[in-house]
Amino acid sequence: MQYPSKLVEDAVHEISKLPGIGKKTALRLSLHLLKQDPDVTHRLADSLIALREKSKNCKICHMLSDTEECTCENIRRDQTMICVVEDTPDLIAIQNTAQYNGYFHVLGGVISPLEGVGPSDLHIDSLETRINQSGSQVKEIILALSPTMEGDTTAFYIAKKLKNYPVKISLIARGIPMGGELEYTDEVTLGRSIVQRLQYNLDDM
Amino acid sequence: MQYPSKLVEDAVHEISKLPGIGKKTALRLSLHLLKQDPDVTHRLADSLIALREKSKNCKICHMLSDTEECTCENIRRDQTMICVVEDTPDLIAIQNTAQYNGYFHVLGGVISPLEGVGPSDLHIDSLETRINQSGSQVKEIILALSPTMEGDTTAFYIAKKLKNYPVKISLIARGIPMGGELEYTDEVTLGRSIVQRLQYNLDDM
Repeated sequence: MQYPSKLVEDAVHEISKLPGIGKKTALRLSLHLLKQDPDVTHRLADSLIALREKSKNCKICHMLSDTEECTCENIRRDQTMICVVEDTPDLIAIQNTAQYNGYFHVLGGVISPLEGVGPSDLHIDSLETRINQSGSQVKEIILALSPTMEGDTTAFYIAKKLKNYPVKISLIARGIPMGGELEYTDEVTLGRSIVQRLQYNLDDM
Repeated sequence: MQYPSKLVEDAVHEISKLPGIGKKTALRLSLHLLKQDPDVTHRLADSLIALREKSKNCKICHMLSDTEECTCENIRRDQTMICVVEDTPDLIAIQNTAQYNGYFHVLGGVISPLEGVGPSDLHIDSLETRINQSGSQVKEIILALSPTMEGDTTAFYIAKKLKNYPVKISLIARGIPMGGELEYTDEVTLGRSIVQRLQYNLDDM
């Protein structure tokens, strides 16, 4: 692709490093910024720098936060449950369902020998500390990890590690997605959904 | 949507002002940057500021440029033709076809009474100056404007303004796009393509 100027080319080069943004979109965005007031670009650049430089992780739940401690344990949430997620986007996704009102705990990844991520790289010890420090307030740990090899390994590791604590360990349900068609569901999912079938309960419908 | 922190929310707010980027994509991009080295964010922000603050328009052809004068008239191009376009993206699009090797002239917009853009807001006078200063080197002005009400008005205005110059004024062909299906082409385009039909020329095929 030809660029009108070196400045545009540099901007396109940097913008197109972002996931899902190609050179063509990056060029469109660059030309858009050039049409706007310089303030728009400054505010955008400043917000990115502030985000990257000032963001912290809460030292209790390890979620992204503006401060050292987020509001994870202060707000009126159900203190008997901790939902363990891989990362912040998963937490947001679960929050947006409005179906869960307990605590969260962000692992910061999943165990992946291929990528050199071991249990000690994740916030598993601090989950144990949290359970210990809560007295016996925490009754259930919900493992909300992706149904992948790495997610399953991590779930297994955590479940084993916590087996001596008086907490119930649960796993989010895997099965056919709502609106999905049986015919086109992959065999593993369909097989699991038969093995792990649920009692039909009219009250849940 | 709930955000993990104010910093993320601010970044999402600024990023989602870009065309074609919604809040969900903006959040994904923000979280991506947080996973990368801070350098990535700094380089991105710097390139955007440099683009916005240092970009100039060539004072001859008015295209985006790093300097006061771009290479528009220096390079080995066909000096008998000037292709008039609305803006830089159109110029890039035409350049990428590799079918045109003449000069370009960027108007910086089209006449649009609704948006308060009149002929004096566009680089039409400087096009006249260019034709004058070229001696009689320029033989043809190609109007490559969008086939919209505004584009047509602008083409008409320029054609009228230049009618006393010894230059041929031409308009890029409008018709059925390559690969387009006759059945689904709108009536106006199809009608025009019949009225402005071309002599079938085996050599062009």
